[in-house]
Amino acid sequence: MMKYRKGLADRPAYDVTERPWKIKVNANECNMNLPPLVEERVMGRLSRVAFNRYPNEEYDALAEQIARNFSLGKENVLLGSGSSEIIEKLFYCFGGSKDSKIVYPRPSFSMYGIYASAAEAEGVPVDLEDDYTLDAELFVKTVRESKANLAVICNPNNPTGTGIPRQAVEYIAENIDCAFLVDEAYIEFYGQSAAGLLKKYPHLIIARTFSKAYALASCRVGYMLAGEGIVSMVGRAYMPYHMNVLSLATADIVYQMRHEYIPRIQMMVAERKRMAEKLKKLDGFTVYPSETNFLLVKYARAKELNESLVRQGIGIRSFGDAPGLENCLRISMGLREENDIWLNAIRMFTEGRD
Amino acid sequence: MMKYRKGLADRPAYDVTERPWKIKVNANECNMNLPPLVEERVMGRLSRVAFNRYPNEEYDALAEQIARNFSLGKENVLLGSGSSEIIEKLFYCFGGSKDSKIVYPRPSFSMYGIYASAAEAEGVPVDLEDDYTLDAELFVKTVRESKANLAVICNPNNPTGTGIPRQAVEYIAENIDCAFLVDEAYIEFYGQSAAGLLKKYPHLIIARTFSKAYALASCRVGYMLAGEGIVSMVGRAYMPYHMNVLSLATADIVYQMRHEYIPRIQMMVAERKRMAEKLKKLDGFTVYPSETNFLLVKYARAKELNESLVRQGIGIRSFGDAPGLENCLRISMGLREENDIWLNAIRMFTEGRD
Repeated sequence: MMKYRKGLADRPAYDVTERPWKIKVNANECNMNLPPLVEERVMGRLSRVAFNRYPNEEYDALAEQIARNFSLGKENVLLGSGSSEIIEKLFYCFGGSKDSKIVYPRPSFSMYGIYASAAEAEGVPVDLEDDYTLDAELFVKTVRESKANLAVICNPNNPTGTGIPRQAVEYIAENIDCAFLVDEAYIEFYGQSAAGLLKKYPHLIIARTFSKAYALASCRVGYMLAGEGIVSMVGRAYMPYHMNVLSLATADIVYQMRHEYIPRIQMMVAERKRMAEKLKKLDGFTVYPSETNFLLVKYARAKELNESLVRQGIGIRSFGDAPGLENCLRISMGLREENDIWLNAIRMFTEGRD
Repeated sequence: MMKYRKGLADRPAYDVTERPWKIKVNANECNMNLPPLVEERVMGRLSRVAFNRYPNEEYDALAEQIARNFSLGKENVLLGSGSSEIIEKLFYCFGGSKDSKIVYPRPSFSMYGIYASAAEAEGVPVDLEDDYTLDAELFVKTVRESKANLAVICNPNNPTGTGIPRQAVEYIAENIDCAFLVDEAYIEFYGQSAAGLLKKYPHLIIARTFSKAYALASCRVGYMLAGEGIVSMVGRAYMPYHMNVLSLATADIVYQMRHEYIPRIQMMVAERKRMAEKLKKLDGFTVYPSETNFLLVKYARAKELNESLVRQGIGIRSFGDAPGLENCLRISMGLREENDIWLNAIRMFTEGRD
């Protein structure tokens, strides 16, 4: 007789298997592998790994390097398997009872609601405006009135692409006193990080990832920046050796060589601007302003368009009937040639020639 | 104001930083890196990784390969970051309330108690006999009387090295009806796996790791074998993309080439036998029978001996005052030369010549 944890059976079971897309622009990945200079050093480093040993100084090396870059101490950095795990564990640390409220915008990263219920907390979504901007006053009001344990924003916001200006972030930090997570998974495409506010606001927490701008989705490495007390408490939710050496060593080199990523980040931003202009010219398309490596568009026949693209081996992200995202499609910026191909396929569809 | 989850502050904070040991035989690692043929294929595979993409078919490839080896289906296999994560998640799935009891032997893997409290379950230890054998009847009785959600044995048992014969495992499986985990982290050194019992006992769960016999502690890869229903439920406790591509790809090749590991497994067993004989001859040493890649010894001056070894740069595992392990030391089998060095250091200590 299997006596499982209450609520476990109601959780979603994931199947993340992908089709073999010809063009894959559905997961906000970078469509380029390691820059050649980085690849050379990564492979050199991997060839020197003691595969037989438990992780040891590799965690500290990366954490210290990140800390130095932000003029913080190692005690301000916590590493995780992607920022996903950082967020999952944070939600866990602030959950656990009926009174644990976690406030986040909607639409935003779809996992927030799932992490909240996994943490046995109550998710309290704050609806974005029609143009997907965040009403910071409404957000603050909701956090205060719900007596939240944790407030979360995603900046810039996934899947809408919307940037939240630093002043708005600071306004929120100033006016709430619970833990405040700024999920900066796409910040390298925007620049307006809240990292500079960490010393001023001890309840502020920043989550970052290597999966997007640093093109390291395979490795599952993310990090959290926060005050020592928060890092120490959240660290208790992790088991020893939760990170593996290969990913840590790879991320360490990528971070050392992060200047190598600047040209491609600039290229993705340029492509996003180029494609936004082109999509705007298509009949019936609303293109939302984006500060990320992807674009969100609204189109009345989104579902059929997506099906047509699937048939052509082009993977984009369709949101179906997700609240606030009806008829929306999210497209990550691929290589210039790839972008031209999906744009052409979309144009053909709108012209009834698919 | 930080409103953390209840109980979080009482959890231990880990610091797993190691000294730079001259000889490291404290973590039951394998003291050899990849066999050369395996290394060549691993590096070739890693050079073809799409670092920029989220994990995709790599998980399935490894899970399917493992399933085939056990004549099971992919739906019977769940991968985790080391068997540690498998065990952590299993405890979570069977925890969550005051009535959730998890029964395990004591002394055994020290994390069981920690995983139990992290899962908000009550750990119910069953004391081993004086010679560290498990009284299967007492174990069954405790499981039944406590109405446990989960019963756990470690076979062969860490840190005592004791093997639990297949008949005893089957006796337990036959006489309890809650979920029954056999943690087989060291099974490759023993051989008496319960895997053959999976089809007969649908409540049986087996956890395995690549960290010990397969010398892949750096990668954090383990797996669970169980009925489809259990795998599906426990899978809900994992977030998507919880495994990274580099570790999955490496483990996939190691598993394909696992015959390359047979000679070194045999060598470690031979070394264990050789060292057991030598240690038995030392004054005041009790050496417990082991079916693993390590030996547990009892010695009245264990603490001082350990301090002497530390001073010499030799890392072994001392258990201090852990219940049932007073004055015990655990030593993993290193290379033959390493074993001769630590043995000599121990002998010198016993002769007052350290």
